Amino acid sequence: MTETQVTLIQIDNYGPWTVAPSPKREPDLQLLQSRLYADLSQLVAHHDGYVFSTRFDNMIAVTNGIDLAGHRRIQDAISNRYPVTVSLGVATGTSPREAVGEATANLQAAGSAQDGERTEILRGDPLCGEGAVQIAHFDVNDATSQYTDELNAFEVFRHIDRGYSALLEYMYDAHDSLSFFIGGDNVISVTAGLDRPAFDEAIDHVEETAGIDLKVGVGHDLRAVDAGMAAKEALERCREQGTRVEVGAGESAGRA
Amino acid sequence: MTETQVTLIQIDNYGPWTVAPSPKREPDLQLLQSRLYADLSQLVAHHDGYVFSTRFDNMIAVTNGIDLAGHRRIQDAISNRYPVTVSLGVATGTSPREAVGEATANLQAAGSAQDGERTEILRGDPLCGEGAVQIAHFDVNDATSQYTDELNAFEVFRHIDRGYSALLEYMYDAHDSLSFFIGGDNVISVTAGLDRPAFDEAIDHVEETAGIDLKVGVGHDLRAVDAGMAAKEALERCREQGTRVEVGAGESAGRA
Amino acid sequence: MTETQVTLIQIDNYGPWTVAPSPKREPDLQLLQSRLYADLSQLVAHHDGYVFSTRFDNMIAVTNGIDLAGHRRIQDAISNRYPVTVSLGVATGTSPREAVGEATANLQAAGSAQDGERTEILRGDPLCGEGAVQIAHFDVNDATSQYTDELNAFEVFRHIDRGYSALLEYMYDAHDSLSFFIGGDNVISVTAGLDRPAFDEAIDHVEETAGIDLKVGVGHDLRAVDAGMAAKEALERCREQGTRVEVGAGESAGRA
Amino acid sequence: MTETQVTLIQIDNYGPWTVAPSPKREPDLQLLQSRLYADLSQLVAHHDGYVFSTRFDNMIAVTNGIDLAGHRRIQDAISNRYPVTVSLGVATGTSPREAVGEATANLQAAGSAQDGERTEILRGDPLCGEGAVQIAHFDVNDATSQYTDELNAFEVFRHIDRGYSALLEYMYDAHDSLSFFIGGDNVISVTAGLDRPAFDEAIDHVEETAGIDLKVGVGHDLRAVDAGMAAKEALERCREQGTRVEVGAGESAGRA
Repeated sequence: MTETQVTLIQIDNYGPWTVAPSPKREPDLQLLQSRLYADLSQLVAHHDGYVFSTRFDNMIAVTNGIDLAGHRRIQDAISNRYPVTVSLGVATGTSPREAVGEATANLQAAGSAQDGERTEILRGDPLCGEGAVQIAHFDVNDATSQYTDELNAFEVFRHIDRGYSALLEYMYDAHDSLSFFIGGDNVISVTAGLDRPAFDEAIDHVEETAGIDLKVGVGHDLRAVDAGMAAKEALERCREQGTRVEVGAGESAGRA
Repeated sequence: MTETQVTLIQIDNYGPWTVAPSPKREPDLQLLQSRLYADLSQLVAHHDGYVFSTRFDNMIAVTNGIDLAGHRRIQDAISNRYPVTVSLGVATGTSPREAVGEATANLQAAGSAQDGERTEILRGDPLCGEGAVQIAHFDVNDATSQYTDELNAFEVFRHIDRGYSALLEYMYDAHDSLSFFIGGDNVISVTAGLDRPAFDEAIDHVEETAGIDLKVGVGHDLRAVDAGMAAKEALERCREQGTRVEVGAGESAGRA
Repeated sequence: MTETQVTLIQIDNYGPWTVAPSPKREPDLQLLQSRLYADLSQLVAHHDGYVFSTRFDNMIAVTNGIDLAGHRRIQDAISNRYPVTVSLGVATGTSPREAVGEATANLQAAGSAQDGERTEILRGDPLCGEGAVQIAHFDVNDATSQYTDELNAFEVFRHIDRGYSALLEYMYDAHDSLSFFIGGDNVISVTAGLDRPAFDEAIDHVEETAGIDLKVGVGHDLRAVDAGMAAKEALERCREQGTRVEVGAGESAGRA
Repeated sequence: MTETQVTLIQIDNYGPWTVAPSPKREPDLQLLQSRLYADLSQLVAHHDGYVFSTRFDNMIAVTNGIDLAGHRRIQDAISNRYPVTVSLGVATGTSPREAVGEATANLQAAGSAQDGERTEILRGDPLCGEGAVQIAHFDVNDATSQYTDELNAFEVFRHIDRGYSALLEYMYDAHDSLSFFIGGDNVISVTAGLDRPAFDEAIDHVEETAGIDLKVGVGHDLRAVDAGMAAKEALERCREQGTRVEVGAGESAGRA
């Protein structure tokens, strides 16, 4: 059964920190945010999870298989490395939307993101048993030859961003799914129980509304890293075979 | 006079690298991209420039004051630290759009982004004299109390993304300006010669089309870091005074 | 039974790289070496091992519990992040000296450290069953009040270095143990089966030959991280109780 | 004239931090120390200085050309990136020993290294005019073929460490110079006004007392980075010509 576990990672009281005692230089903030995300990416991946940079001060992670003790270790690692701390809200749901809603509520119940007293919260209910994750990895057809090598770099970015925004809105409204731009021409959607026609329709929708042609590989497994790798391998099959939707499964998917 | 110098930073032949010999784990790619951006952010800032993460494999920088030798040092630093290399296209323009267009063309003329032989290109014409930069730093009014503490984290992100996309499109079409989401509820626009009414109209436009209320601080100086800091200080004045557009100037703006 | 597994980590063909095509700036090499060590420290610790920086281009790790597949993942992670690669030689021994000897021989058998063709070697025989590790964590008594706050910083360093060198030589010659300076006034010895009197004698020896007063906490467990943490907690007991040798055991030591 | 400016960089109240509220895992401390040193290496190098890792919680830097404002920026950068802060003591001297003595005294006068109230001190007197730096870069002859490819990795390290310790003691006692192991088989000595015979004698001394054969390249310039690069190029000439002492000068040495 698909049961997505989502963790909201929120830098504690970050806004005030960025302007205290006076506004910090933007490149210094970009450095901090990027390093913090890089570290979280690795820390969460060591427990087979995925983190998305999202707004950088609020990041969304898929954390199936990580219990509260594992979350605490990640939280401690950040406080041992950075001048800021993070709070974590954890929840599960039959849809990713439900999970992120609960995860956020868990954190909001502890106080405001800009409450200086509300630091290093860890609240929520990780999965008791095993729930599988579905990951869909999209990219843009012929992005290099059609866009990168042809248009100016900002217009390429604008096209990619339009396609991403169209996909983000559609997947959330139609399928309670969470979609994240991960660089280049790649978007990952955290989905639940979607079948091939659903992905076909999503690709049609983005083509119609934003004029961007996508393909997608889909994976399903007990852990985000394994589901994501299955999705990437399915996407490679799209590339080799000229297809636009390929659905695979991770190595341990049978266990789910 | 405002004359923006833009550098396109492109990871050489990155797409093929990410799937050779087989698809690399996504968290490892996120780690590489984030660290590379963090380093570029610092390297360019040491020459008083700004870099935006953009698509991560293609980044756009404002590099007024950095000559070709400085660019070469940045390029060398990356090849000494990473398993990938970067190519750089440099150009100037009276508008940021013109500059990014030329910078991209300089790189495209050297070959495809996925040509394995086209590595560590450095092409372009930095500014001879001094040209000033205009930086506008936007944020969302009451983002924490209205969004972060109220909606689920993905919906907050979706609202912010809508506001950003609306601003990006408007500033590019109406003012040949380049806008970048930089985390939290912050967007930086690289503009040229815009006055207060132009910013007022941009804010009106985003409110009407995306329902997001923005304010903006604007700075102008010879270097991106100084113009950006002036913009941040102007934004602080918006916060203190309840205004929605404040225009300041950097310390050395008089020289421009 | 104590059976130490040691891994020699060697940067491939590093010397030639540092001067090709011309000598690289020293701070850039220091940056690379420090980051590489920081990453290895974390990668190995995720499998509960310890790495010591040693010569930086040749690092020695205690890797009980890490099989060849785990070593391969660490090796791959480095090649995905750095412009250099590493080779790994693995071996076990009833003494740490025997283990490092075998680990080195495994790598030397594959070719010279400066053979450009000999890259990413992984050779050796990890432990089949479980073997426990003994870790001794030494520090200098009253280092801050006697040295850091009193002498010039280089003389403090010289005193600490003398104490370290005396300990290194003694522990290797008398007990086939490997000792590493890990910063501040701290030295870790990887030992095997040493009892309290052996540590008392080692401390006497360093006091007599180098005039440095040490204390030591000793831990024993199946993994280096757990044995090391037990050693640190034992060292805290020395501090609290004014003793100079405390021997503890890690949580899972009973299993060994 | 040779006038060395030295900065002592001390992590504030670090010892207590490493064991509060309970001892932190050693790999986490190694990660922090290595990253902090890597960042300092780059921050100081952007002002053309050198930093040596020394004891990691106390680092010694050669900072000719960096004024108090530059030091403050480096100090601020660390506090914006790390959970710990640093204090800086700055001084100059006709010998490196004199400079490090004064730099240390400047910091000690502000309180103990483990005084929780004594944080982010910046005290000292940078150079008013220009003073040049002399840097000597030593390495071990045939280190790979004689040691790395022949002995076990710890014995290689022991030999290198013996040679380093002998050089450190001799250069300090005979020439008021500061010597630092920088990885591999390399040692840098910060010297002042030493001529070729002095280096010949140092090499003889290390051969006699530790049995290690060294060669050395010497550079002299207004900034540590330039003097260090001249030293490296001189060392390359030793390699090419089979000589054991080569003395060069940096590009701007004539200005000194």
